[in-house]
Amino acid sequence: MGKGRLEAFSDGVLAVAITIMVLDLKVPHDTSVAALVALWPVFLSYLLSFVYVGIYWNNHHHMLHATQHVTGGVLWANLHLLFWLSLIPFTTGWMGENHFAPLPTALYGGVLLMSAIAYWLLQQCIIAVNGAQSTLARAIGSDWKGKLSPLAYIAGIGLAFVSPWLSCALYGGMALIWLVPDRRIERRMVADA
Amino acid sequence: MGKGRLEAFSDGVLAVAITIMVLDLKVPHDTSVAALVALWPVFLSYLLSFVYVGIYWNNHHHMLHATQHVTGGVLWANLHLLFWLSLIPFTTGWMGENHFAPLPTALYGGVLLMSAIAYWLLQQCIIAVNGAQSTLARAIGSDWKGKLSPLAYIAGIGLAFVSPWLSCALYGGMALIWLVPDRRIERRMVADA
Amino acid sequence: MGKGRLEAFSDGVLAVAITIMVLDLKVPHDTSVAALVALWPVFLSYLLSFVYVGIYWNNHHHMLHATQHVTGGVLWANLHLLFWLSLIPFTTGWMGENHFAPLPTALYGGVLLMSAIAYWLLQQCIIAVNGAQSTLARAIGSDWKGKLSPLAYIAGIGLAFVSPWLSCALYGGMALIWLVPDRRIERRMVADA
Amino acid sequence: MGKGRLEAFSDGVLAVAITIMVLDLKVPHDTSVAALVALWPVFLSYLLSFVYVGIYWNNHHHMLHATQHVTGGVLWANLHLLFWLSLIPFTTGWMGENHFAPLPTALYGGVLLMSAIAYWLLQQCIIAVNGAQSTLARAIGSDWKGKLSPLAYIAGIGLAFVSPWLSCALYGGMALIWLVPDRRIERRMVADA
Repeated sequence: MGKGRLEAFSDGVLAVAITIMVLDLKVPHDTSVAALVALWPVFLSYLLSFVYVGIYWNNHHHMLHATQHVTGGVLWANLHLLFWLSLIPFTTGWMGENHFAPLPTALYGGVLLMSAIAYWLLQQCIIAVNGAQSTLARAIGSDWKGKLSPLAYIAGIGLAFVSPWLSCALYGGMALIWLVPDRRIERRMVADA
Repeated sequence: MGKGRLEAFSDGVLAVAITIMVLDLKVPHDTSVAALVALWPVFLSYLLSFVYVGIYWNNHHHMLHATQHVTGGVLWANLHLLFWLSLIPFTTGWMGENHFAPLPTALYGGVLLMSAIAYWLLQQCIIAVNGAQSTLARAIGSDWKGKLSPLAYIAGIGLAFVSPWLSCALYGGMALIWLVPDRRIERRMVADA
Repeated sequence: MGKGRLEAFSDGVLAVAITIMVLDLKVPHDTSVAALVALWPVFLSYLLSFVYVGIYWNNHHHMLHATQHVTGGVLWANLHLLFWLSLIPFTTGWMGENHFAPLPTALYGGVLLMSAIAYWLLQQCIIAVNGAQSTLARAIGSDWKGKLSPLAYIAGIGLAFVSPWLSCALYGGMALIWLVPDRRIERRMVADA
Repeated sequence: MGKGRLEAFSDGVLAVAITIMVLDLKVPHDTSVAALVALWPVFLSYLLSFVYVGIYWNNHHHMLHATQHVTGGVLWANLHLLFWLSLIPFTTGWMGENHFAPLPTALYGGVLLMSAIAYWLLQQCIIAVNGAQSTLARAIGSDWKGKLSPLAYIAGIGLAFVSPWLSCALYGGMALIWLVPDRRIERRMVADA
C-alpha cells in the first residue's frame, strides 16, 4: 500500500492545526501599545506550539521517508497521533489566555505527553511492519530523545502546580533538544544507499 | 483521467473538516477543574466524529487505491460524499454543546446515514466504471458492514427520542466495527498481483 | 515549469474555502425543531455555494489536465481566480443570514460574475501559452456555457432588486447546467490520444 | 531527501492562511449599502495580504523548483518563514478593523519585514546546500528586489507614525514590483537545460 496519501493527509491536518492556532491571537479592539503587549502570553504559547507542531511534522517526514511498507495498522496509529496533535490548538489557547495558570499548563503538558506516546506507538508499529533490520529500526538506535521526552512532560505536568514557569521552561527546553535535526535517519539512509 | 487530484482534494476537505471540529472545543474562561470537566460532552462528540472522519478517510483511501478509472460521474459522487461529511462539524457541535439532547443526536445520526448512503453510491459508481470483475468489485464481496451501517444509523435516529445514550452507543459501536481495517481490499489486491 | 504545485495549491485553497463555509452554519443554542428549521436559508446558501465551488474544482481539474505548459502568467491568472472564489464564504454567509435580501443576493451574483470572468481569463491565458491547436483550445470549442454564465449572473444581480428568488433560481439553474460534466475535454483527450 | 513533502506542507499552510484571512471579513448584520461600504478597510487589507501571500507562494514555487537538495536545515528555515507568514492573518485583521491606524500599520510592515528576512535566510540556506554554481544561485544574481524590500518595509514602519497611507502605498508598491514574475529563475533553468 502506498504511503503517499498517508503523508498528504498528515500534512493537511498539521498544516491546518498550525494555522488555525493563530485564530487564538484575537485581534484587539484598540490600537494602543498596551493592547498589543497584553497579547504576549497568547503569542508565547502560539510560538511554543508552532515549534512543537513543526517538530512533529519534521520528524514524521523523516520517519515516513525511511519507511517502505504501510499497513492498515500504521494508518490507525497515524490517526491516533493526529488526534492528540489536533488538540494542541485547544490547550494552546487555554494556556495562553489564562497567562500560564497551573491547570492549563499541566493540560498542555498532558497533550504533549499523549502525542509523544502516540508518536512512539506509530514508530513501533512501522518498525514491526518493516522489520528490526530496516533502515528506520537501525536509525532510531537507542532513541534517547524519544525516551527523555515523556519524562520531561510528566515532570512538567507535576511542576505546573508548583510553578508553571518551570513547566514552560521544561517544554521549551525539550523543544530545543528536538530542534536539532534527527540526523540519525539521514545518516543511516546514506549508509544504506 | 487521473485519480491524483481527486485524492488530493478529498484529503484536503477531510483534513480541514477534522481539524476545524476542534474549534467547537471552546476555550473556557476560567481555569478550574470544573470548567474543564464541563467540556466532556463536547470532547466526547469530538472524539466520536474524529474517529468517523478517520474511518471515512481510511476506507476512501483503500477504495481509491483499488480503482483504475475515474470519470466525471465519480468526481460528482465523491463531491456528494464530501458534502455530507462537511456537515459533521456542525452536527458534532450541536450534539456536544447540548449534552446529547434528542434532536441533535438524531440529526447527528441523520448525517451519518446520508454519508453512508453517499459512500455506497460512490462505491457503486466506481464499480460501474471499473467493471464487476475489477479488484474493487470482488474485494467488496457481500459488504455486510456497508449494509449494516445504515440500519444502525436509522435505529440510532429513532432511539434518540427514547434515550440518546442508546443512539450514541450504536454510533460508537458501529465505529468500532469499522475500526477493524478493511482487509478485504488489501487481501484481494495481493491475490490479484 | 510543472503544474503539480499549481494544482496542489488550488486544491488546498478550494478545500479550505468549501469547508470553512460550514462555520457560517452556527450551532443553535437550543435544541428545538424550530431552531433547526430557522437555519434553512443559511443551509440553502451553503448548499448552493458548495455546488459552485465543486463545479469550479471539477472544471479546473479538467482544464489543468489538458494543459501541458504553465508560465508565470498562468500562476497569476490562477491566483486571481482563487481570490474571487475565496470571497464566496463571505457572500454566502451574508446572503444566508439575511434570508436572501436584495443587496446580499446581488453581491453573491457579483462574486460569481467575477469568478466566471477570472476563470475565462485563466482559460485564455492557458490557451495562449499552449497554442490554438492544443487539446484544450480545440476541446473548449464554442464554450457556450462559459459565455452564458456571465449573462445569467448579470441578470441575477439586476433581478435581486426585483425578486431575489428569481436571482437564486438563475444561480441554481446555471449550477445545474454546469453540473453536467464537461465531456468536451474528456472526449477531445481521448480523440487526441 | 525529497522536496515533495516540503512543498506540500508549505502549500497547505499558505492555502489555509490565505483562506482563513477571509474570516476577518465579518458578515454585517444588516443589508444596507452603508454596512457593505463600511467594510472597505478590512477588504483593502485582505486584498493586500492575499497578494502578498500569493507572491510568497509564487516565489517559493520558483525557488524550490530550482532546488535539487533539501536538508534538515532547509526544513527549519522553511518553517521559520511559515511562522512569520502565519502571522499575516492577525496583522491583516488588526490593521483592517482599525482603519489603518499607526501602530497596526507599523506592525503589518514588521511582519512583512520578518517574512522578507526569513525568505532571504531560506534562500541562503538552499544556496549553501546546492552550491554557488547551482541554477538557483546564478538565477538570483544581484537580487535587487530582495534587497529593496526590507528597506521599503522599514521605511513603511517608520512612516506609519507620520501617515499610515504612505506606508500602505509603500507596501502596495512593493507588492506591484514583486507581481512581475521572477523570470530570472525561469530563464536560467531554460539556459541550463
